[in-house]
Amino acid sequence: MIKRNLYTLFFASISSICLANSTPQKPNIVLIFSDDAGYGDFGFHGSTSVKTPNLDELASGGVKFTQGYVSDSTCGPSRAGLMTGKYQQRFGYEEINVPGYMSENSALLGDEMGLPLDQKTMAEYLKEQGYTTGVFGKWHLGNADRYHPLNRGFDEFFGFRGGDRSYFPYTPEQIKNGNAQFPDKRLERGMGVYEEHEGYLTDVLGLEAADFIDRHQKSPFFVFLSFTAVHTPMQATPEDLAQFPELSGTRQELAAMTLSMDRASGYVLDKLDELGLADNTIVVFTNDNGGPSDRNASNNAPLAGTKSNFLEGGIRVPFLMRWPDQLKANQEYDYPVSTLDLLPTFYAAASNTVQKKDKLDDIDGVNLLPHVKGMVSERPHQKMYWKKETRAVVRDGDWKLIRFPDRTAELYNLAKDIGEQNDLASVYPERVASMYKDLFKWELTLERPLWLLKRKYENYDISRMDKYRLPAVQP
Amino acid sequence: MIKRNLYTLFFASISSICLANSTPQKPNIVLIFSDDAGYGDFGFHGSTSVKTPNLDELASGGVKFTQGYVSDSTCGPSRAGLMTGKYQQRFGYEEINVPGYMSENSALLGDEMGLPLDQKTMAEYLKEQGYTTGVFGKWHLGNADRYHPLNRGFDEFFGFRGGDRSYFPYTPEQIKNGNAQFPDKRLERGMGVYEEHEGYLTDVLGLEAADFIDRHQKSPFFVFLSFTAVHTPMQATPEDLAQFPELSGTRQELAAMTLSMDRASGYVLDKLDELGLADNTIVVFTNDNGGPSDRNASNNAPLAGTKSNFLEGGIRVPFLMRWPDQLKANQEYDYPVSTLDLLPTFYAAASNTVQKKDKLDDIDGVNLLPHVKGMVSERPHQKMYWKKETRAVVRDGDWKLIRFPDRTAELYNLAKDIGEQNDLASVYPERVASMYKDLFKWELTLERPLWLLKRKYENYDISRMDKYRLPAVQP
Repeated sequence: MIKRNLYTLFFASISSICLANSTPQKPNIVLIFSDDAGYGDFGFHGSTSVKTPNLDELASGGVKFTQGYVSDSTCGPSRAGLMTGKYQQRFGYEEINVPGYMSENSALLGDEMGLPLDQKTMAEYLKEQGYTTGVFGKWHLGNADRYHPLNRGFDEFFGFRGGDRSYFPYTPEQIKNGNAQFPDKRLERGMGVYEEHEGYLTDVLGLEAADFIDRHQKSPFFVFLSFTAVHTPMQATPEDLAQFPELSGTRQELAAMTLSMDRASGYVLDKLDELGLADNTIVVFTNDNGGPSDRNASNNAPLAGTKSNFLEGGIRVPFLMRWPDQLKANQEYDYPVSTLDLLPTFYAAASNTVQKKDKLDDIDGVNLLPHVKGMVSERPHQKMYWKKETRAVVRDGDWKLIRFPDRTAELYNLAKDIGEQNDLASVYPERVASMYKDLFKWELTLERPLWLLKRKYENYDISRMDKYRLPAVQP
Repeated sequence: MIKRNLYTLFFASISSICLANSTPQKPNIVLIFSDDAGYGDFGFHGSTSVKTPNLDELASGGVKFTQGYVSDSTCGPSRAGLMTGKYQQRFGYEEINVPGYMSENSALLGDEMGLPLDQKTMAEYLKEQGYTTGVFGKWHLGNADRYHPLNRGFDEFFGFRGGDRSYFPYTPEQIKNGNAQFPDKRLERGMGVYEEHEGYLTDVLGLEAADFIDRHQKSPFFVFLSFTAVHTPMQATPEDLAQFPELSGTRQELAAMTLSMDRASGYVLDKLDELGLADNTIVVFTNDNGGPSDRNASNNAPLAGTKSNFLEGGIRVPFLMRWPDQLKANQEYDYPVSTLDLLPTFYAAASNTVQKKDKLDDIDGVNLLPHVKGMVSERPHQKMYWKKETRAVVRDGDWKLIRFPDRTAELYNLAKDIGEQNDLASVYPERVASMYKDLFKWELTLERPLWLLKRKYENYDISRMDKYRLPAVQP
């Protein structure tokens, strides 16, 4: 990232002369987002079986958040929170939106389930700041045209509207025989132009994002690189599989898919270096929700739980931020942060209000920059919340209260018990009582859900949680 | 009721000769339903300030259920359970349906909220058995024509489609200036013929029901006399108010309205006597949910809680059944029963399967007759359930577990603690754990809700519960 070509250096010098003592150049922003990855399946989190050399280098070049959270343990709601900086339940995006999985009693169904149009997205905020915006990969915020990325603040889109798809191109015959859900699985360039890729999807997404950077290197840009890796279907290339001869089965697929995702991230990081843009580019890597270990053999070590439940394994995710011009390398930041914070953080960077502690109006996330720059010593969030119908969590400091439909609430001190094994609810009944009140007070600020999963999935989620109730260990 | 005119006696004798050893004559069925009445506001429950002489006589002529329950603590869902014999959450009727109170995120809104058409009603079951069916008063199971009583098994309707209305006739000017909700508050005869009554509504409903009995005395009939008394608006006649000079304000209105409801019930009971039909008529009196003491000054003594919460005061209701030909007078039945039981009970009586313990297919209620006739000694229900989103209850025997959104679950032994003052959750953690599992298992059998209240009403309900958390005492 310290490589700069002469042209860029020259241009930067001219700029700083022309703009002396005026507004500094807006940083570029690259948000790399993996899908269903396990907390423990990264080199920078100690994995030895899964290899992520590019992301490990990214981690060492900036800030590693040890307590990074998403606002839900499933894809759609988590992305809705990410894109708006708000608890998504505030606008009814409480449950995951997957055609075929929903109760017929939902207000919205099928392609109509999407990020409500009165919600302003991260891309819209950044466009207002003069950014060119592009999203590459999975959208999952609504299949109908009105929810399309190009209608939600993005200038460019190469990806698909739904929640998952094949890593390899669909054949003309598969497309012809596809069921009703098929259109949201097809790759689309811009809006309405469907074209299957060549090769392996993860690589293609990284190359497309790098190409976007190449084309927009002169303007501040925002790239949302939204991988499907390592969501099912478990499909890797023979070359990547061959890198893990010691593994087998789904775990081998997972490791190979993660390697490809790391490599594709590298295409983008290399492009930033090549163009001399790395120092003034914010690169964030994070992941939409905890690994569904039973589906993709992901490992959430040292956490208990998985995707679709509110144990740490469902909501705590890898979370890295690099911005060489502003943030020191090799940092760890240990207070809890959230993907809700990315919108206000990016906005602060884009609008040159990096040092401001203020929240954006009506946004739940906070600008993390004063915190990671050491200008502010308190926690970004004293309290954080999660909810899906009866299941809900409030975290207050290091205390976490979990409300369940089928058992009494549990209380954990995460500072001493990251694996959530020592339920202290009966030891601290007054703390439980006051945290219950906090949770309910927050719930009252939410809308009712716009769509509803079939009831049976509540059982699915609870059963999966119980199956992974012990902390995962690195394999 | 023991009065019989000679004609009837003669006819009965002829019948029993003609039908010797064959099917007995089907009993008539009269279901009298009050609205928002307090558990303690009946003479037969010990009230001295509120007077119910006709209902007291009804009570002494048959069975008084000391633990009669409704399936919800609000009007609409309770009536949906009553009319179908099923936990109404099984078909999405989980929350009360009141236009203007709903979240815009509901699948159904306004006049579209109603008892789903694939649900078979009590009236439809009885029509199949040859009954002439009539409903008089409040419907509240959907305003749209397709939900209309005449489309749900009733031959006659004189009442209104909504949840409440004035006790006095609307003036032509009021009707002309009425808002959009007004049509479901107007009195309707049959379907689409709107005509305001003369006089005081409660009396009119009683007289209409008596007239129906007069007209259909020869056929088995089913009367659902669905009073609005003692729901708001608090409106009584000067004559009834004058009966309670020792009371004042809303409490005086309540006593006067209750007296009118008792008098109007008397019109029906007298008609049965007059026609010599009382001995083979099942008369049930019950009430849709606990009294909202803050609204109508009702008193739920000796219970804690009110309408819209799941303390006993919200769900335990007055519950009387008289059938002189089959049930001994002056009985008390102390095991819990439910309004869900009325459909299978009536069906068993109508189909001459009084002694059968079997449940109707897919119905949650049970035939109470073998229980009250002493043929079966066990409880009609070992377990009973209530739910509105996170708030939920399971009762198992005399143990009651209440799940809350804002506090830890509470456990009561109702046999020893009818006022729910002694929370035993911390004393019996294993019982709490197993009851929680039972509750969740039941929840998994339910559909998701077809409509959703605005979130703020959850707080309203909780606050009202806390305000009435001590057991009411007779004033």
